[in-house]
Amino acid sequence: MNNGKVTLLSAGPGDLDLLTIKAAKALAAADVVLLDDLANPEIVSLAPRARVIRVGKRGGCKSTPQAFIQRLMQRYASKGLHVVRVKGGDALLFGRAGEELAALRRAQIPVDIVNGISSGFAAAASLGVSLTHREHCQGVTFITAHMQDHGEPDWAALAATGTTLAIYMGMSRIDTICAGLLSTLPLSTAAAVVQWAGTEREQRLVTTLGRLAADATAAGLGSPAVILVGNAIGEANARHEAHDDMAHAA
Amino acid sequence: MNNGKVTLLSAGPGDLDLLTIKAAKALAAADVVLLDDLANPEIVSLAPRARVIRVGKRGGCKSTPQAFIQRLMQRYASKGLHVVRVKGGDALLFGRAGEELAALRRAQIPVDIVNGISSGFAAAASLGVSLTHREHCQGVTFITAHMQDHGEPDWAALAATGTTLAIYMGMSRIDTICAGLLSTLPLSTAAAVVQWAGTEREQRLVTTLGRLAADATAAGLGSPAVILVGNAIGEANARHEAHDDMAHAA
Repeated sequence: MNNGKVTLLSAGPGDLDLLTIKAAKALAAADVVLLDDLANPEIVSLAPRARVIRVGKRGGCKSTPQAFIQRLMQRYASKGLHVVRVKGGDALLFGRAGEELAALRRAQIPVDIVNGISSGFAAAASLGVSLTHREHCQGVTFITAHMQDHGEPDWAALAATGTTLAIYMGMSRIDTICAGLLSTLPLSTAAAVVQWAGTEREQRLVTTLGRLAADATAAGLGSPAVILVGNAIGEANARHEAHDDMAHAA
Repeated sequence: MNNGKVTLLSAGPGDLDLLTIKAAKALAAADVVLLDDLANPEIVSLAPRARVIRVGKRGGCKSTPQAFIQRLMQRYASKGLHVVRVKGGDALLFGRAGEELAALRRAQIPVDIVNGISSGFAAAASLGVSLTHREHCQGVTFITAHMQDHGEPDWAALAATGTTLAIYMGMSRIDTICAGLLSTLPLSTAAAVVQWAGTEREQRLVTTLGRLAADATAAGLGSPAVILVGNAIGEANARHEAHDDMAHAA
């Protein structure tokens, strides 16, 4: 009888208090932890029994190849161990969970998935805005600007949906992204950047789409960050204006 | 000195283990809990000190008017109490957090926001699929089919993004939604419905867009449910096929 299994565990944006209770229980029971470079390394304090293997890029090393990570998970699970594969944010939003799930299925290894808080949600919480304020939009689109797989996203098509856009991995190409969106959206569209959302190092910028690229550069913001575009995000500015109004009225 | 404040707290899809640790701490410290009808009522067991006020539609009563909920929050917070406003899913995805935040700002009441797991993420976890498998798409769009505010969503524009679609509050109009999407997407596009995602009552259906409306009706699925559309969701079927392949190979 082999009780080995893999848990794909979402570590959220960094703050350990943003882990779910389910995630904390899985970590406490883990025999082996495979730690992604986007997850807060302090998470291992919640897995006292586990052998910890770092599979990220920290320290200037090359990234661990995806195929090797998959073999590691299978090797330990086949020995009957509970392997917890930790991913930043929510494991099911970007981050290659699809390939890992497919490989584990082929190997007939049971998999649990534990959800978490993706950085776009943490960014909205820090700005104090709803992603979908109903006066402004009917939804939100999470998109990666990373080009390896599908080429440039169709920014005009994305803008045409009228949804708030939460753009991941876009900071190195923020000029191109803004130009693409400005073919459809007005210069005055609200926009924001939140770097290191949901961590102690968090930095926020609220501006307009027309000024986004220049303002982000001037503020020295870089990866990892979420770019938010859409007038629902403009409610972050309304915070300060409303506060001023009250001060004058008082 | 008045230390009153409001925490907008995301209760996730229902399973109390899907609360964040931060949410559990806020509930433990709450003086007053305002409980939404979409949240699991057992959550009050985590708020032993709190006076609990139900502001939902359970029991056949009318929904509590939004303005009254906002006045309740302000009244208790003005008395120096810690008010926890509990919302299902993530408070910043649908659910009127935008209006509540604006009203609290106008009243100069401090607000914390605690993120949670939205049912679209819980649905994907139950199906064992990534929302954004990179062989299929570059993102995911969360959209409400509820028509009160903006009329019918532009299904053709949404389909044109190539993102996975996670459609909330769409079960009563699933025929219209499928017809709208089929003007752009092929009949064979993968689709799924997950009712009561992330709860003990969960029901799942995986099918194609061409058969979605008929299959959902035949299976007796209704609200509350998330409709997922896009070929990333088809990986849920690959689970069973891969399993069969292995069985034959063995």
